[in-house]
Amino acid sequence: MSRIDARLAELGIDLPTVFPPAGNYVGCVLHDGLLHVGGHGPVNGTDIITGKVGATVDLPTAQRAARMTALSMLATMRAELGDLDRIRRVVKVFGMVNVAPGFNQTPAVIDGCSDLLVEVFGDAGRHTRSAVGLAELPFDIAVEIELIAAVD
Amino acid sequence: MSRIDARLAELGIDLPTVFPPAGNYVGCVLHDGLLHVGGHGPVNGTDIITGKVGATVDLPTAQRAARMTALSMLATMRAELGDLDRIRRVVKVFGMVNVAPGFNQTPAVIDGCSDLLVEVFGDAGRHTRSAVGLAELPFDIAVEIELIAAVD
Amino acid sequence: MSRIDARLAELGIDLPTVFPPAGNYVGCVLHDGLLHVGGHGPVNGTDIITGKVGATVDLPTAQRAARMTALSMLATMRAELGDLDRIRRVVKVFGMVNVAPGFNQTPAVIDGCSDLLVEVFGDAGRHTRSAVGLAELPFDIAVEIELIAAVD
Repeated sequence: MSRIDARLAELGIDLPTVFPPAGNYVGCVLHDGLLHVGGHGPVNGTDIITGKVGATVDLPTAQRAARMTALSMLATMRAELGDLDRIRRVVKVFGMVNVAPGFNQTPAVIDGCSDLLVEVFGDAGRHTRSAVGLAELPFDIAVEIELIAAVD
Repeated sequence: MSRIDARLAELGIDLPTVFPPAGNYVGCVLHDGLLHVGGHGPVNGTDIITGKVGATVDLPTAQRAARMTALSMLATMRAELGDLDRIRRVVKVFGMVNVAPGFNQTPAVIDGCSDLLVEVFGDAGRHTRSAVGLAELPFDIAVEIELIAAVD
Repeated sequence: MSRIDARLAELGIDLPTVFPPAGNYVGCVLHDGLLHVGGHGPVNGTDIITGKVGATVDLPTAQRAARMTALSMLATMRAELGDLDRIRRVVKVFGMVNVAPGFNQTPAVIDGCSDLLVEVFGDAGRHTRSAVGLAELPFDIAVEIELIAAVD
């Protein structure tokens, strides 16, 4: 069993099924040791978190959405790489929150993703990032996140 | 004639003139085999598509704006590279839609760009991406898109 | 004394203290010759520029905020690299402006950052970029900017 799969099991995490892209694109592209993962959302099978954070979605729910989004990205990455042990470093996260006017605790929301990455990968999961408020996200999802990782 | 120029001719596409940057920056930067193309808009000479998608701009017009934006990026890339045949893979697209409140069909809009890239480059045009709703874009353009490509 | 430190002194610029990340992430990640600098804001010690550009923040103040943000990124980069002379090229800037509805002079705002980078690094500071309007930024900061640089 791979080291990261063992770590996921230890954390009680089952990765969701890979989310199929919502248009004419692919979930990620690997080029020259960098894996670019495009925008993912808080989707697990038929479970999805939608709505404006700060209005119909509260902070704890938004944080859970960011964590779900991280898990969806991990599922995409595992499908691409075969084995998450190939992740050498999570380089960058771009976290987008579907905000109601006036909600600006976007870093606290995206910590739901960042915390999960560090729980799973340890120091290799520590990344740089932005965490910002978008006017609208596809299908009104509460959070959308993309990521760049260095891989072996 | 280059392979991609022949493909553009086959599709009946004339690339627009290169759009001059709207500030103290350049249209793209090539470093170590990765071409970073900064934000481009739906501009072709004096023709420009502005306005809020979902209000004054409808979905088909927004999709046309995304396609125009892709063509403007191709013009910038050809000017930089000399020959679009040097594009090995379109890695990543970041598509930003100038949304009216409540408009969240942003993936359908950005497909106007993604479809064009796949028409022109085939499988090498398949990229990962995000397609999100921005509060405002420069000069009220309807769409702004940036791109990363791997080049020979 | 390093060449870039001498240039900063010549410009009368004292870099601010390094801004501590506002969540579970790091200020930048260096991988394989590319330095990814995450989102920074207009903060210098206890001085911070907040508010909506086009409403409570006017254009000159927003430009100053973008310049402050560039200086905060330089501080982070110098702490990571030891010496800013290692910057070979600023590749990409992603500039986000905390806009009031209807404010779309976002390129003029982000020129406050771009101008500073070119003043400091000369031609090596010329980058590609996007400059767009966000619905909300963390803690209501007026501007947030991230950057990619090629380093030796």
